[in-house]
Formats: sequence, structure tokens, C-alpha cells
Amino acid sequence: MNTRIPILKLGNCLLISIQWELDDQTALQFQEDLLHRIYETGANGVVIDLTSLDVIDSFIAKVLGDVINMSKLMGAKVVLTGIQPAVAITLIELGIQLEGVQTALDLEKGLETLRRELGE
Amino acid sequence: MNTRIPILKLGNCLLISIQWELDDQTALQFQEDLLHRIYETGANGVVIDLTSLDVIDSFIAKVLGDVINMSKLMGAKVVLTGIQPAVAITLIELGIQLEGVQTALDLEKGLETLRRELGE
Repeated sequence: MNTRIPILKLGNCLLISIQWELDDQTALQFQEDLLHRIYETGANGVVIDLTSLDVIDSFIAKVLGDVINMSKLMGAKVVLTGIQPAVAITLIELGIQLEGVQTALDLEKGLETLRRELGE
Repeated sequence: MNTRIPILKLGNCLLISIQWELDDQTALQFQEDLLHRIYETGANGVVIDLTSLDVIDSFIAKVLGDVINMSKLMGAKVVLTGIQPAVAITLIELGIQLEGVQTALDLEKGLETLRRELGE
């Protein structure tokens, strides 16, 4: 059974779309996979698209906050796209630190934001 | 458990990366999801990236051939990227019809090919 989230590489950016509620194991596997791909590819930008995600539970929100900070540590800028109201509420209420994380409406705008930030 | 393949929308193209061997159920679900997304979004291009796929079994090869032909029927051009040797061998040996399907080295080149084909 495949319970991993594919990570797409487009130029020097990685694209991830989380389209269904993750279970805890999948979320942790995603964290590991993403950091590994950043290291392996030397990507300097990451877009995580949450458009199709209606809700997010506290564990997944924490993993998401962590993976964003870890990615930044590894030198990759992160843009979050398509955050729905309930997801925004959960992230803020849980005090997830998303300082310095850009957001955008959709994947395309996220990629534009990232390329602008990276000065391309 | 999530055993679906995320389909990313970038402009008027859909991007799919198949990174692990699919089981039969996931492959059929993917076929249904992709056709539904083409209809829903009006996408006129699809890039299916197989870079991380080492091998492909005959059932999955058939589903892949089918979904490409179905997408074309629905008006979307398909580009396959990152086909590895063993995958190419399986597709040809099984006589999977991939007429008129463009291929490219990686996701980025696939997207370029598609945009050129679509006259953008």
C-alpha cells in the first residue's frame, strides 16, 4: 500500500499537494521524504498546496509547522498555498509558528511568489 | 488510509507524479480521478511523470495506456516524462498504444513540450 505523498520537482522547486487528510504515519513519512528530497536535489524552494484539504488536526498541523521550519533550516524557502478557512483557524489557534512563510492563492501563484522571492 | 494519487493543477495543465508501484485499486482510482479532474477543471494538458518508477506490471501498463487515450478523448494532450528502460520495455512488449503521445526527460521539459504543443 502506498501511503506516501509524491514530491514533484519542477526546476529548482519542489511541489507537494496534500489533497486528503493525512494519518500520523503518512505525515511523518512526508516530513522525512521532503527533507531528504531537499537535500538530494538541492532545491531552494518548496510549494505546499493545501487547496483540497478541508480540515487539519492538531498533530498534522504541528508536523506541517515543523517541516516548514526544518525546510528553512536546510535553505529552502516555503510557500503555502490554498489554505482554507478551517485550516487557517486550526493553524493559528494551535499557535503554529509560520513566521516568514509566504502564502498564495493557488499552486501557480505560489510558484510565481517563490520565483520572485528567489530572484529568478 | 490514503491510496490515491494527488493531481496538481498548474495553469491549464494537470501534473501527476507516479513515484511508487501502484496496486490495481489505486491505478483504477487514479484513472477515475484524472478524468474527473480534466472534466472539472477544463485542463487541456496533462503531464504524467514516471521518473521514480523502476518497473511497471502489465495491469498498470494497460491502465496507463487507457487513461492516456481517455484523456485525449476528453480533449487533453498528454505528455509522459521520465520513462525508465524497464518501463519502456514493458509498455512496448505489451503493445500498449501510445500513438501521438509526446515524451520528455523530466517534468519541467514535459511542461515546456505541452505548452509549446498547446501554442502558448
